[in-house]
Amino acid sequence: MKSFRKELTFKTPHRRDYLNITPDVQKALLESGIKEGLCLVNAMHITASVYINDDESGLIADFDDWLENLAPHEPISQYRHNGAEDNADGHLKRQVMGREVVVAVSNGKLDFGPWEQIFYGEFDGRRSKRVLVKIIGE
Amino acid sequence: MKSFRKELTFKTPHRRDYLNITPDVQKALLESGIKEGLCLVNAMHITASVYINDDESGLIADFDDWLENLAPHEPISQYRHNGAEDNADGHLKRQVMGREVVVAVSNGKLDFGPWEQIFYGEFDGRRSKRVLVKIIGE
Amino acid sequence: MKSFRKELTFKTPHRRDYLNITPDVQKALLESGIKEGLCLVNAMHITASVYINDDESGLIADFDDWLENLAPHEPISQYRHNGAEDNADGHLKRQVMGREVVVAVSNGKLDFGPWEQIFYGEFDGRRSKRVLVKIIGE
Repeated sequence: MKSFRKELTFKTPHRRDYLNITPDVQKALLESGIKEGLCLVNAMHITASVYINDDESGLIADFDDWLENLAPHEPISQYRHNGAEDNADGHLKRQVMGREVVVAVSNGKLDFGPWEQIFYGEFDGRRSKRVLVKIIGE
Repeated sequence: MKSFRKELTFKTPHRRDYLNITPDVQKALLESGIKEGLCLVNAMHITASVYINDDESGLIADFDDWLENLAPHEPISQYRHNGAEDNADGHLKRQVMGREVVVAVSNGKLDFGPWEQIFYGEFDGRRSKRVLVKIIGE
Repeated sequence: MKSFRKELTFKTPHRRDYLNITPDVQKALLESGIKEGLCLVNAMHITASVYINDDESGLIADFDDWLENLAPHEPISQYRHNGAEDNADGHLKRQVMGREVVVAVSNGKLDFGPWEQIFYGEFDGRRSKRVLVKIIGE
């Protein structure tokens, strides 16, 4: 069994951003040399998500509105977590979108359906944060 | 290390449906011959979910009402994703229920608690869609 | 490839509780002797979650309020699942928080970002329930 580990770093311009990181994960898979196995991609920070969905700008705007409605950023005082911090909503939004994805690796490729794309969902951005790619297989 | 891959195809009669696919996954595991490892089951389409919960008809109706309340299908015009399409709500519902499950394989069986059942949650049905089963182990 | 399996058992004092189980998972990893691989941690019961987020008491209270707002326990009669049972809300809350986490194992350790902690989220407690730890690797 082979294993491979790589960190990706992202610093987004806004508090909330949605980045298609599929090319970064594909590059990591190529570097790993693994042909058959499983690829874990997870946010290493707890106000961010890694998820799989469509790369369509209207949908991304819909996700952002919907998450803001489910767990609003303001008023900041509504959350007990917000003393020195103001990011409680980011912790909640990340649970809806998820921490991680596990993707099958088949024939050296991410084994995807036609529209699957891996996204980094940032809910407390404007600073450098990391994503872990861990691949095991042969 | 052994690896095994199988696609399952489902075409549901309604826009939203919830299918217990545990027997299909058990069959795939048997075909794989793998006794110890991990089994990934994921929707290959982005308006569908694979999740684990109870096979009880009242609960399934509760899930459907709850998801429709969290991310209503209508009015269609409330979502920017809905130009040529009308399935934005399905993309949102799928994030609540999740894309995938990872199940332990122990002694050649899906290593489940007493009530765990694997479901395919369809949120934009009435056409053929695929689920991927990928198993690695020995 | 090595594989390791361990069950953890928890009995929480309240209907809803949030336990940091990171030390239990670290102990299991040590017992496994696995240095590189993947570690699956999943609730074996369907009204409970395993998730990764911050161990901060204000945030845990925020999670509890937020989940109770998204899927209220009462009135019990609002859910069709609640005939002989009263835990439909627990099945819904668990979908928001998730069934499982998959954590990378690197250099014999849980490969975590700075604040990641593994929690057992209980939504129908006051009885013994199990969590499965399955680790594969080398």
